[in-house]
Amino acid sequence: MTIADLQQLIRDRYHATDSARGAPATFLWFVEEIGELAHALARKQRGDGDQENLAEEFADVLAWLTTLANSSGVDLTDAIRRKYLVGGGPAGTK
Amino acid sequence: MTIADLQQLIRDRYHATDSARGAPATFLWFVEEIGELAHALARKQRGDGDQENLAEEFADVLAWLTTLANSSGVDLTDAIRRKYLVGGGPAGTK
Repeated sequence: MTIADLQQLIRDRYHATDSARGAPATFLWFVEEIGELAHALARKQRGDGDQENLAEEFADVLAWLTTLANSSGVDLTDAIRRKYLVGGGPAGTK
Repeated sequence: MTIADLQQLIRDRYHATDSARGAPATFLWFVEEIGELAHALARKQRGDGDQENLAEEFADVLAWLTTLANSSGVDLTDAIRRKYLVGGGPAGTK
């Protein structure tokens, strides 16, 4: 699956509800999902992890990040190419 | 670019520094990038946006999310497939 496929999937399925909500509320929803990811990562860190739930939380954060990108007119593939591929990208750390 | 390509790119380039840092510190770095994305989105909302900077912040958040997925043993493509494609995925809202 390409990053562009994901952006299109999210656009096709959720554009109507996403655009009605607006960027500030969508960012709140996004951060709620980050909280759920934090919880799943913290459980893993404490030795009480659920790998299937963890994967689901990653999917949700990625889906909401994609929603925000769509509503902001940002092409994620192009953004990654410019930052991480052109000129070899940042070295050592991001 | 596929999501798997991105996961491999981040693994190839940053695995050594990422794995030395560990998941809790990596999560802190990730949230720092989310703060920068929030700032770029808020500027746009206030009519003072910089679309190029906004795209860069999206790239950084996606790169750090990918780092966290790598260090957690999560395949993002598989996670998206399971949550958003199998059975048609969640309808209406995510």
